[in-house]
Amino acid sequence: MSLFSYAAPLDEMRFVIERVLNAPAQWAAVPALADLDADTAAEVLAQAARFTSEVLQPINGPGDRQGCRIVDSRVKTPDGFPDAWRQFVEGGWPALACDPDWGGQGLPQLLNAALFEMLVAANHGWTMYPGLLHGAYETIKAHGSDELKQRYLPKLVSGEWLAAMGLTEPQAGSDLGGVRTKAEPRADGSVAVTGGKIFISGGDHDLTDNIVHLVLCRLPDAPPGTKGLSLALVPTVLPDGTRNTTAADGIEHKMGIHGSATCVMRYEAATGWLVGEPHRGLPAMFLMMNAARLHVALQGLGHLDMATQNAERYATEREQFKGPIARQPAMQRTLGRLRAVTDGLRVVMYRVAMRLDEAEHHPDAAVREAAAAEASILTPVLKAFGTQQGFQGASDALQVWGGYGYVAEYGIEQTVRDARIAMIYEGTNEIQAIDLVQRKLLGGAGPAFETLLDGLLQDAGDDACGLALRDQVGHARAALAALRTAAAADAQAPLWVADDMLAGVGHLMLAWAWAVTARAADSDGDADRARRAAAEHGARWVLPQADVHWARVRSLAAT
Amino acid sequence: MSLFSYAAPLDEMRFVIERVLNAPAQWAAVPALADLDADTAAEVLAQAARFTSEVLQPINGPGDRQGCRIVDSRVKTPDGFPDAWRQFVEGGWPALACDPDWGGQGLPQLLNAALFEMLVAANHGWTMYPGLLHGAYETIKAHGSDELKQRYLPKLVSGEWLAAMGLTEPQAGSDLGGVRTKAEPRADGSVAVTGGKIFISGGDHDLTDNIVHLVLCRLPDAPPGTKGLSLALVPTVLPDGTRNTTAADGIEHKMGIHGSATCVMRYEAATGWLVGEPHRGLPAMFLMMNAARLHVALQGLGHLDMATQNAERYATEREQFKGPIARQPAMQRTLGRLRAVTDGLRVVMYRVAMRLDEAEHHPDAAVREAAAAEASILTPVLKAFGTQQGFQGASDALQVWGGYGYVAEYGIEQTVRDARIAMIYEGTNEIQAIDLVQRKLLGGAGPAFETLLDGLLQDAGDDACGLALRDQVGHARAALAALRTAAAADAQAPLWVADDMLAGVGHLMLAWAWAVTARAADSDGDADRARRAAAEHGARWVLPQADVHWARVRSLAAT
Repeated sequence: MSLFSYAAPLDEMRFVIERVLNAPAQWAAVPALADLDADTAAEVLAQAARFTSEVLQPINGPGDRQGCRIVDSRVKTPDGFPDAWRQFVEGGWPALACDPDWGGQGLPQLLNAALFEMLVAANHGWTMYPGLLHGAYETIKAHGSDELKQRYLPKLVSGEWLAAMGLTEPQAGSDLGGVRTKAEPRADGSVAVTGGKIFISGGDHDLTDNIVHLVLCRLPDAPPGTKGLSLALVPTVLPDGTRNTTAADGIEHKMGIHGSATCVMRYEAATGWLVGEPHRGLPAMFLMMNAARLHVALQGLGHLDMATQNAERYATEREQFKGPIARQPAMQRTLGRLRAVTDGLRVVMYRVAMRLDEAEHHPDAAVREAAAAEASILTPVLKAFGTQQGFQGASDALQVWGGYGYVAEYGIEQTVRDARIAMIYEGTNEIQAIDLVQRKLLGGAGPAFETLLDGLLQDAGDDACGLALRDQVGHARAALAALRTAAAADAQAPLWVADDMLAGVGHLMLAWAWAVTARAADSDGDADRARRAAAEHGARWVLPQADVHWARVRSLAAT
Repeated sequence: MSLFSYAAPLDEMRFVIERVLNAPAQWAAVPALADLDADTAAEVLAQAARFTSEVLQPINGPGDRQGCRIVDSRVKTPDGFPDAWRQFVEGGWPALACDPDWGGQGLPQLLNAALFEMLVAANHGWTMYPGLLHGAYETIKAHGSDELKQRYLPKLVSGEWLAAMGLTEPQAGSDLGGVRTKAEPRADGSVAVTGGKIFISGGDHDLTDNIVHLVLCRLPDAPPGTKGLSLALVPTVLPDGTRNTTAADGIEHKMGIHGSATCVMRYEAATGWLVGEPHRGLPAMFLMMNAARLHVALQGLGHLDMATQNAERYATEREQFKGPIARQPAMQRTLGRLRAVTDGLRVVMYRVAMRLDEAEHHPDAAVREAAAAEASILTPVLKAFGTQQGFQGASDALQVWGGYGYVAEYGIEQTVRDARIAMIYEGTNEIQAIDLVQRKLLGGAGPAFETLLDGLLQDAGDDACGLALRDQVGHARAALAALRTAAAADAQAPLWVADDMLAGVGHLMLAWAWAVTARAADSDGDADRARRAAAEHGARWVLPQADVHWARVRSLAAT
C-alpha cells in the first residue's frame, strides 16, 4: 500500500488558468505581462512541480519527526531544509513575482499562487520560511527609504536573505494596540529596538546568513493603541557584518509544522530603521498582512489537494468487502466533496490572484480600483473559509484510511496537524469574519460586493450548477440587506453572524467556481467529464450547507 | 495564565441524574439497584472526581510527551501509569458496574458512564487500558465456559488483570470476514492460536501481570467470511504461570493517545480457549463491541467537557480589546455552542446508560426489551455523533486560545489529537451510520424508532426548546419515510445519506435533551439560569444545522 506522495495537479492548474479564467488573454492586455504566454507559464509550473515533488515532499515527513532545535543559541532546521532552500534560490523562485527593477522575474501573482499551492502541499513547515518573503518585499518597496530598498530588496528578491514578521507579544495577540516593544531614535537616524515577541515564524534558522525582521514597535512619543505603532526593519546581521542584538530565546513545541521554527524573540537595543512614517506602522504592516493572508488561504488549498489526491489513490487501492473502498457510498460522498471543494477553491483563489495582477498592472485606473476592491473583499473570505475547508477536508480524508489514518507513517495525520495552524495565524478566522463584515461589507465595500454579485450572475447558465449559483447570489443579496438592517439598529449586532456571512460568501464563490468549471469543461474527454461530475457533486451535496449560514444571517434581521 | 486542568462536572452530573432523568426513582423500582440512593451515587462520583483530577489528569500531558516504548521486548507505559492503575484497583473502580456474584459492586451502568466520562476527560491514553475491561467481562460472562468464568472473571472484575480485543488484521479492517488468524483444536480442549493482529490497544503493557486477549480467529473447518469466525480467549500468562507464546512486535506511532500502547500482536500457536460456540465468534464479539461503543461515545463527551470547561476559563482570564475575550460575540457563539452540546450530549448518553440498566435489571420483560431496543438504535448514533462533536468541539475550543492553542503546553491541542481516534475505532463512524440505517432503522427496528419518537414528543412543552423538539421529531418522521421509500426502489440507496440520517438523529436527541433540561432547570438560581440559557442557545444556534441533514435525506426520496 503506497504511502503519501505528491504529484502537483498541473493539468488542473492549466485547465483553470487557460480554460476557466482565460488568464493568457489578461496577460496579453497588460503591458507588464505581455511577454508571457500560456506555454511559458505551464513550463514554469512544471519546473516548480518537479522541485516540490522531488525535493520538498521527501523531507516533509522526516522534517515533522525531527523538528527544529536550538544548538549553540542558534536554530537548526531539519536535515535537508537548508539544502532545499539553496536549490530554491538557484531556481530563481523567490524572484518569481517581484519587480524586474529589483531583480525579479515580473511574473504574475497568479503563477506565484500556483507555486505556493504546490510548496505548501509538499511541505508546509519548510514553506513557512519563504512564506513572508513577498509580504516583506512589498512592504519595504512601498514604504522603505531609498537606502533601505537598495540595501535589502535585491537580497530578499534573490533569496540570499529571508524575512520575518514581528507582531505578536504575550499580551498583544489579535489586539495589536497592546504592543509594548520600544524603538528609541538615535542620532544616526537608526532606532534602538527593545522588547520581546512571540510566535515569530522563521525568527531564526540556518537557511540564510541574514534574516530581515519587520518589527511592530512604539516610539517614545507614541500615542496609545494602534495609532502609536511604528514599523522597524531589524536585520539579524548589520551592514558592517556584525551580529545585531537579536536572539531567539526558544522555539515552541507545536501541534504541527514542526519543521518551522516558531521563535520567542528578544531584541535588546537592537539596531533598526523605521519603515514608513512614525506611528504609521499598522497601515504598512497591513500591506504585508494582506499578501500573507492570500498565502495562508493557499495553504488551505494545498493541504486539501494533498489530502484529496492521496485519499483518492488510497481508496482505489484499499480493498474491503470484495472491492476497492472507493466504491462504497460513504467513501464516494467523502471523495466527491473533497474533489469538488479542492477544485472549486482553486478556481476562486486563482481568480483573486488575477485580480491582484490587474490591480497592480492594468493600464486602466478604474479596472485597477475595481480589481483591488474585489481582492480586498475576498481575501478574508479565502483566508478563513479556505483554511477551514483545508483542515476539515484533511480530517475528512483521514477517515478514508480508517485506523491507518491515525498512524504517523501514512502521512495524512501530519496534514491534519499542519493544516490546523492556518485557521489561527495572520489574523484568526474570527478576525477575518469581523474584517469582512464590519470593515468591508458594512464599511464602504458594500457597493463593490454588489458589483461582484452582478458579475457572478452573468456567469450563471441554465444548467444545474448555474441555477445553484443564481440561488446563492439571491441568498447573498438578502444576507447583505439583513446585515444592513441589523447594523442600523445596533452596530455590534452583525458580529453575531459574521462567521456565517463569511461561510455563506465562501459557498457562493464555490457555486460560481462550479458553474464556470462545468461550462469550461466542455469536451467529451475523461478529464472534462470528471470536472463536470465534481462540479455537479458540489452543487448537489456541498451547497446545501450554505443554507444554514444564510438562514442564520437573515434571522438576525428578524430578531 | 492557567494551563489545562480538570474539575469533574459533579454538579452537572447530579443535575442530569437526579433532576433531568430522575434516575433514583428508576433505581428504587428495580430490585437489583434498590440499595442505591442519590446521595450514595453522588459520593461515588465525588470520589471518582478526586481520582481523575488528582491522579490521572496530572500525568496526561507528560504521558503524551513521553509515550510508550518497548524495553526488552515488553511495552513500558509512561511514568505514573502503572501506579495510577494500582490506585484505581485499590479504589475498587474496575468492579463498579459488575455483578456482585463475580466480585462486582453491582452499581448501575449510569454511574459507570459518568466514571468513564471523567476518566477520558482527564486522561484518554490511560483510560484505554481499562476501556475494554467491561466488554470482555460481559462477553466471558455471557459466552464463556464455567471454567473460563471461574478462572478469569474475578481477576478482571478486581482489576488484577486487564483485557485486550484482537480483531483487526492488515487485510481485515471494517471487513472482519477477511480475518485469517487460525485456531487449531488440541486434544485437551484448548486451541492453538496462530496469526497476527494490528491496532491492539493495550495488547501489552506494564499495568498488570496478565492480559486476557479475546481474539477473532478461524477453526480449520470454518466456512469463509464472518460466519466462520470464532472467538478465543488467549491470556499472555498461562494458568501454570508460564508465559504464553504471544508477543507485541511493535507499537504504532500515532497522532494522539500516545500513552496508550497500540500493539502489533503475534500469536504463535498460543494457547487459548474458545469463548462461545465454534463459528459464533461474531455475535459474541458484538456484545463486547456494543459495550465498547458506548464507552467510545463517552470519550467524545469527556473531550468536549474538558475542552469546554478550559475554554470557558481561558476566555474569562484572557484580555484583548480592553476586556475578557469571552465578551466578544464570536467567542460567545463558540462557547455557547460548546456548552450546549456538552450538556446536551451528557443528558442523552446518560439516558442510554439508564436504558442499559433497565434492559439488564428491570423486572418487566417488556420494559427490558423496549429499553434494549432503544439502546441498540442510539448506540451507533452516540458513537458517531458524539465522537464527531468531541473532535469538532475540541478544535473549535482550540480557536479560543488563538496561537497558544497550537502550542503543546496549553493542553488543548492534545485534546484535539486524542479526540480524533474516537471517530475511527470500534467501527468507523461510517460503519455506525450503515448500522443505524440498514441494520436498525430499515432492518426491523423502525417501529422501535417510532416508539422512541412518540416518547420524545411527550417531553415537548410549548417553550422555545419544546417547539424546536417538535420540529425535529417531524423531520425525523419524514426522514424515516424517505428512507423507506428509497429503500423500496433500491436497497443500496439509503447508504448515500446514512451519515445525514445519523447526524439528524443526533441533533434530534440534542433537541430532546435541551427541552428536558430547560424544563428541569426551574429555579431562579444562577446554575439553573445558565442551564436554561445553554439549552436555548443550542435550540437557537445549533439545531439549524440539522435542517441540512434532514433535507439531504428527504432529497433521496425525490431523486
